[in-house]
Amino acid sequence: MALAFDRDELTAYLAEVFPQVREDFAIDALDEGGITMRLLTAERHLRPGGTVSGPSMFALADVSVYALVLSRLGPKALAVTTNCSLDFMRKPQAGVDVVAKAKLLKLGRSLAVGDVHMFSQGSDKLVARSTMTYSIPPER
Amino acid sequence: MALAFDRDELTAYLAEVFPQVREDFAIDALDEGGITMRLLTAERHLRPGGTVSGPSMFALADVSVYALVLSRLGPKALAVTTNCSLDFMRKPQAGVDVVAKAKLLKLGRSLAVGDVHMFSQGSDKLVARSTMTYSIPPER
Amino acid sequence: MALAFDRDELTAYLAEVFPQVREDFAIDALDEGGITMRLLTAERHLRPGGTVSGPSMFALADVSVYALVLSRLGPKALAVTTNCSLDFMRKPQAGVDVVAKAKLLKLGRSLAVGDVHMFSQGSDKLVARSTMTYSIPPER
Amino acid sequence: MALAFDRDELTAYLAEVFPQVREDFAIDALDEGGITMRLLTAERHLRPGGTVSGPSMFALADVSVYALVLSRLGPKALAVTTNCSLDFMRKPQAGVDVVAKAKLLKLGRSLAVGDVHMFSQGSDKLVARSTMTYSIPPER
Repeated sequence: MALAFDRDELTAYLAEVFPQVREDFAIDALDEGGITMRLLTAERHLRPGGTVSGPSMFALADVSVYALVLSRLGPKALAVTTNCSLDFMRKPQAGVDVVAKAKLLKLGRSLAVGDVHMFSQGSDKLVARSTMTYSIPPER
Repeated sequence: MALAFDRDELTAYLAEVFPQVREDFAIDALDEGGITMRLLTAERHLRPGGTVSGPSMFALADVSVYALVLSRLGPKALAVTTNCSLDFMRKPQAGVDVVAKAKLLKLGRSLAVGDVHMFSQGSDKLVARSTMTYSIPPER
Repeated sequence: MALAFDRDELTAYLAEVFPQVREDFAIDALDEGGITMRLLTAERHLRPGGTVSGPSMFALADVSVYALVLSRLGPKALAVTTNCSLDFMRKPQAGVDVVAKAKLLKLGRSLAVGDVHMFSQGSDKLVARSTMTYSIPPER
Repeated sequence: MALAFDRDELTAYLAEVFPQVREDFAIDALDEGGITMRLLTAERHLRPGGTVSGPSMFALADVSVYALVLSRLGPKALAVTTNCSLDFMRKPQAGVDVVAKAKLLKLGRSLAVGDVHMFSQGSDKLVARSTMTYSIPPER
């Protein structure tokens, strides 16, 4: 499916509609196969011991699939998270970014499902896995 | 199962081991049946339109089950989230706290499973539902 | 929400549209609060050791929520499972039926979400818990 | 991680300990990267309209991850499903086998997590996706 945005356009659009996430996330790559996003790990994302918090990992998975849906449907799209499953496999490494590789498993008329694998920067060991389902309300 | 902490002790203990959450959450009630916790909704938890963000809801569910496990096992307990499922049913109301009612479905030797129902303060309509599984490593 | 079927009507309707399940399940109770269904445990539902199989528990959860959706929307309703989460808490007792208590957490225009708690007949200990999401295609 | 069984040994072992599944499933391939299993679709797995039932898809995902855990840990291993998430993306094609490709995301001392993608035979369109968590009790 053709992309409605390229990486720079999507970065600019997310920053505009979603200003809270601008300092937390960056898009590394976007193409027809999927998206690679990054949590710009900072003090506020950490738990005691230096590990990245669960809510920060959730946020990374959620924004990755949201960005992917927008990249296909363009700026008019509404999309609301309806379901999430999240498995934590390993402790993320302290002090490094978390990288998410997400792809769409389904992009239907009313539901989109994305699958996300998360890694500590520079490692190929899976830290967490998530599936996010978005409901896409009909255009008005 | 007897409680290892009462509400005030648990509040104090969480504030000590988990300082990042002190300003975000409060324990409303704790007894042998479960726990009621509250997200002290502030600007940083919101999305455009004033709705409470998904990561904030995840964080509320996660800390509620963690607090519940601690309340049973006491301060020596380690507990690590291994799995989460989360269903979003309705938009939370803008500008009010989110209240979570959590109970333990299982507290085994190596796994604890908690169920969480979340509501906007003052409403009995379910906003979201979550199940959180914690792994409890053996004491050393 | 008013019921489109009572228990006997729903039993008859399910037997008609879903003949494969007639010998496996029975409706114990149906009212506006929810449904109680039962797996009529037989040899074919068991695993070695006499425990009820995971797929049989899945089937019980799935049919309970499907029956609940039908009981609200009536015989014209289409409903397709899109997502399931399932937690297994305890081994079901050998040689007894499994009882499911299900209620709807949401019945929207395009999605229904049901929550199911499963017990061994005669016990109040939770054996498994499930959330099932059904997509409801628009009527044609 | 080295394999404790090759494909033929695993097929024989599953048939011995799990006779109920012998007629339902076959192992197509097994190597260090994962397993490919197949639901030998028959009348008893179908729903009205000829589609493969949800419980049959659950069973395929569950047995695939179980077989994968056994292939690593050998015949002494116990493994009990504790959690499942399952997303249904598309209707399976009528009258053909369902093929599952599963791999282990984690094989820890007490938990194993497997990821399963399911397809209709001969198609590369994802029909369903599942994550299965198994608890591995300590050897006695």
